[in-house]
Amino acid sequence: MGIVMGPNQYGKAEVRIVSVNRDNARHTIKDLNVSSSLRGDLDSAHLTGDNGNVLPTDTQKNTVYAFAKEAPIGEIEDFALRLGRHFVGTADGITGARILIDEYSWERIPVGGAGHDHSFNRSTDEKRTTAVTIDGDQAHVVSGLKDLIVLKSTGSEFWGYPKDKYTTLAETNDRILATAVTARWRYLHTDVDWGKSFESIRATMLEAFATTHSLALQQSLYEMGKAAMEKHPEVAEVRLSLPNKHHFLVDLDYCGLENNNEVFFAADRPYGLIEGVVTRDDVEEAPQAWFSLPQF
Amino acid sequence: MGIVMGPNQYGKAEVRIVSVNRDNARHTIKDLNVSSSLRGDLDSAHLTGDNGNVLPTDTQKNTVYAFAKEAPIGEIEDFALRLGRHFVGTADGITGARILIDEYSWERIPVGGAGHDHSFNRSTDEKRTTAVTIDGDQAHVVSGLKDLIVLKSTGSEFWGYPKDKYTTLAETNDRILATAVTARWRYLHTDVDWGKSFESIRATMLEAFATTHSLALQQSLYEMGKAAMEKHPEVAEVRLSLPNKHHFLVDLDYCGLENNNEVFFAADRPYGLIEGVVTRDDVEEAPQAWFSLPQF
Amino acid sequence: MGIVMGPNQYGKAEVRIVSVNRDNARHTIKDLNVSSSLRGDLDSAHLTGDNGNVLPTDTQKNTVYAFAKEAPIGEIEDFALRLGRHFVGTADGITGARILIDEYSWERIPVGGAGHDHSFNRSTDEKRTTAVTIDGDQAHVVSGLKDLIVLKSTGSEFWGYPKDKYTTLAETNDRILATAVTARWRYLHTDVDWGKSFESIRATMLEAFATTHSLALQQSLYEMGKAAMEKHPEVAEVRLSLPNKHHFLVDLDYCGLENNNEVFFAADRPYGLIEGVVTRDDVEEAPQAWFSLPQF
Amino acid sequence: MGIVMGPNQYGKAEVRIVSVNRDNARHTIKDLNVSSSLRGDLDSAHLTGDNGNVLPTDTQKNTVYAFAKEAPIGEIEDFALRLGRHFVGTADGITGARILIDEYSWERIPVGGAGHDHSFNRSTDEKRTTAVTIDGDQAHVVSGLKDLIVLKSTGSEFWGYPKDKYTTLAETNDRILATAVTARWRYLHTDVDWGKSFESIRATMLEAFATTHSLALQQSLYEMGKAAMEKHPEVAEVRLSLPNKHHFLVDLDYCGLENNNEVFFAADRPYGLIEGVVTRDDVEEAPQAWFSLPQF
Repeated sequence: MGIVMGPNQYGKAEVRIVSVNRDNARHTIKDLNVSSSLRGDLDSAHLTGDNGNVLPTDTQKNTVYAFAKEAPIGEIEDFALRLGRHFVGTADGITGARILIDEYSWERIPVGGAGHDHSFNRSTDEKRTTAVTIDGDQAHVVSGLKDLIVLKSTGSEFWGYPKDKYTTLAETNDRILATAVTARWRYLHTDVDWGKSFESIRATMLEAFATTHSLALQQSLYEMGKAAMEKHPEVAEVRLSLPNKHHFLVDLDYCGLENNNEVFFAADRPYGLIEGVVTRDDVEEAPQAWFSLPQF
Repeated sequence: MGIVMGPNQYGKAEVRIVSVNRDNARHTIKDLNVSSSLRGDLDSAHLTGDNGNVLPTDTQKNTVYAFAKEAPIGEIEDFALRLGRHFVGTADGITGARILIDEYSWERIPVGGAGHDHSFNRSTDEKRTTAVTIDGDQAHVVSGLKDLIVLKSTGSEFWGYPKDKYTTLAETNDRILATAVTARWRYLHTDVDWGKSFESIRATMLEAFATTHSLALQQSLYEMGKAAMEKHPEVAEVRLSLPNKHHFLVDLDYCGLENNNEVFFAADRPYGLIEGVVTRDDVEEAPQAWFSLPQF
Repeated sequence: MGIVMGPNQYGKAEVRIVSVNRDNARHTIKDLNVSSSLRGDLDSAHLTGDNGNVLPTDTQKNTVYAFAKEAPIGEIEDFALRLGRHFVGTADGITGARILIDEYSWERIPVGGAGHDHSFNRSTDEKRTTAVTIDGDQAHVVSGLKDLIVLKSTGSEFWGYPKDKYTTLAETNDRILATAVTARWRYLHTDVDWGKSFESIRATMLEAFATTHSLALQQSLYEMGKAAMEKHPEVAEVRLSLPNKHHFLVDLDYCGLENNNEVFFAADRPYGLIEGVVTRDDVEEAPQAWFSLPQF
Repeated sequence: MGIVMGPNQYGKAEVRIVSVNRDNARHTIKDLNVSSSLRGDLDSAHLTGDNGNVLPTDTQKNTVYAFAKEAPIGEIEDFALRLGRHFVGTADGITGARILIDEYSWERIPVGGAGHDHSFNRSTDEKRTTAVTIDGDQAHVVSGLKDLIVLKSTGSEFWGYPKDKYTTLAETNDRILATAVTARWRYLHTDVDWGKSFESIRATMLEAFATTHSLALQQSLYEMGKAAMEKHPEVAEVRLSLPNKHHFLVDLDYCGLENNNEVFFAADRPYGLIEGVVTRDDVEEAPQAWFSLPQF
């Protein structure tokens, strides 16, 4: 009987990299936030401070920058796979790696009706994400998006729920439904056109959110996941974390006005939080792909 | 000789309001963050806790919501003017008001190639702003924007600066220039097509940022302000606060790679901060319009 | 073959509650941030929007406030257990619950040398936390702390690590070691003096951080976990997430000054991130207790 | 008539510096966030990009680090005065400087009943601040604090305010009063024991908050400023920005419970915002000392 090390990982978080492709006068840029974690036989680092297997996090950072120069970054999934596979084996005990990448998006500044060659503005606060796990010679890719803020001004109801002595909420057949989507989806393999798959999944989930007449945010969650998976056989499962950003109807009785779902107070806290996995019933689970990921 | 109250104001900050226009099935929404402050004879509140002149901040909040129902919100400048003028005189001593509004922008979710009738996604983290000051029967309008993040991947130099024993920075004739624009401009009067003026000033400043070959962020600041004012005689002055969001070229010598302005580290802190006023030399100053505004 | 719902939960996040005990003139306060999530048979909510099993998140919030009045809140672990056990069974399908509580700490404002009866100031940004999981009639308690910022100005080394072509970091036998501790520890049972256990674990981990001559942040992590568990047989495992908040020695060669570990640049990003579990080798794992918890 | 540059400044913001005094084994640390801005004849930088007068912000940063080594930092006011006076004249046109410093506080980690020699934990999120303005050979010192969060669980009333058709707030003679204090006070000269003055002003304002039976947050603001100035003839004026962090009494009627000021919802937004200057009526104003400072 004794006290021992369990699972662990270490790495460099939030390496901010902007890469400019200057092959011609019309530049393109990639703007990423890269985090790497290494896994493997790290007991001696923990027990005795022996760093023989500890590739420094500083070196991990340097590697990210060097890789961005050695070859074009390309899609974030490919960049993460390259980095992760490189890190495995850089020290004797390193047998696994987790690479997280967030991508920020930019658009060209319009000048005289056309986009400028080398001047950009941030187009949105939404990020495209990937979480790649390398475990020996296995690779898992979980891609996604976050901070996609959406709102329906009608087409959302909420009723038929259980009541108890703590219930005060009135049933409604018309409310604002708003959320900030965090979605992650696991790919079944790595033979994917990542950019095209991302764009289609994002558009499909948005469309499902828009067109679902919602009786519960749970229903919207399921429809978003289902729609994405029906179109994308390369996806094994979709995980969604949807804060219910409440918009409360303001009671304007105080000054004799009727408020027909027109004026709302957008609340901060508390908020609902709806989280769930939409999955295929015939795929193997991959707990390794999800281990230690933030959010549900 | 004694201790007395100097200038002061009080109000309700960050009233979050979402207003839905449901006149027909194609909804439109306004999403605002409204802060109000009242000014005037408030000595007795401070000296003795006599609230006879203190219109409660809760009532200010209620007024914002009610006004959004009593008439369409319209442009934020108009809404702020209506609110500010209303508050003056609500209590005997209230002779002035300051209304701050930030507006969040939304776009329609695309469904089958067209924008959906009542489903939206947040289009950007940038906000349109206004700061309206009512002083008796005078009104000042200072509008602007914030969190407009821009970047030039070339077309920016920095050299010719003084050196001393603390200097280590190398001169450069090619660097990334990036900033998050906070701009405020003061209108000379209130007979303005606010929405049109805003869109044009924003586009003009963006274009000036893009097309100015920059020898200093100060130069970009001046060109942005000047371009806006040349097109907009209704504007007396423009104030800009431009953090210089440093993108440091990564020295890849460690692995024998040349870095031709391709791979950059996007730093957080410290950052440069360039602030300035571009103004007409023949207009009266209006310190009242700017008093206590956050930022330069 | 088909698309189905996998694991899911829903609830109300960040219910901010301040409770005042006014039994006598010397008030005490509890300041909590409570999140609840319910689990169970929620398929019909997702698939058809049938809310028959969905106790509204609004009711969950109301229940938190009512429970704070029905009996003294007491230790956050007890409050979470009471809430969690209550929620199970509130609807037919609800068979599990997860309660997260963060506690903010206050101290009395000193007046004339003694703490005031009813005036307080926030003593620190550090929070005490608990995550209670109810699964049928089973209960897991995982308590912890977060935002505990610590720094050693010496007594930390880093050397002996593998080098490759991306290595630039110099070995050091004297550096600043700084981190913001997030710790969670799982209790083996619920027959615990929660407050006393928390204070002792916190003090023990702090002391271990202070007195460990550190060859790697990993070693500090292990020593912190081990010290806590040696003193606390009621703890099955400790999980720590330790960002390595880099303090870089400033090279003052530019002005001819030697910097003997005296002047440091405190960096924001990137940062190291060291995460690990210290555990007993003779206890059963409890994945349920950790499922969906933020952080490693 | 034309477009010209108005007031402007530029500098390096948020230089994070940790300085360790290692004169003996019992280390002390200073942890600062330093921002510098230079002012003067900067027209050519703006109009033509001529940087002949622009001491680079990078050099300003280097200077901060070098100064911390050249002599002990000492009190932040002294450090800011040294830096500001140095910067004036570093380039021909530089005639003024503004130095902002925030100081973070640390305490020793207790080990065996005594504070450790070189291990510290952040004691609070509150910061001590200074804003020093150098204008030629004149110097202004405005010191302060921010993020000092305080709460009174009773001893606060609010009634006697004007009512109109938008009023819904009920009068109360017992409420929670909570705020996050931002205070700045201007010194009349620089011959001050800065540390001692700071500690006394902070303690005096806290005590005034605690002991004032408050009929309005405005009254608390005034009493806090007045108490500080009565004790401190070296202070010309105190400016306070006090968000009214609302704690709403939860109406527990829904489950038949009475809530005697015991259970509160701590709200985020909107919040009240009370700002004011407490000043002596026989001192000269110093607009220069306050120009462009954030907050009222």
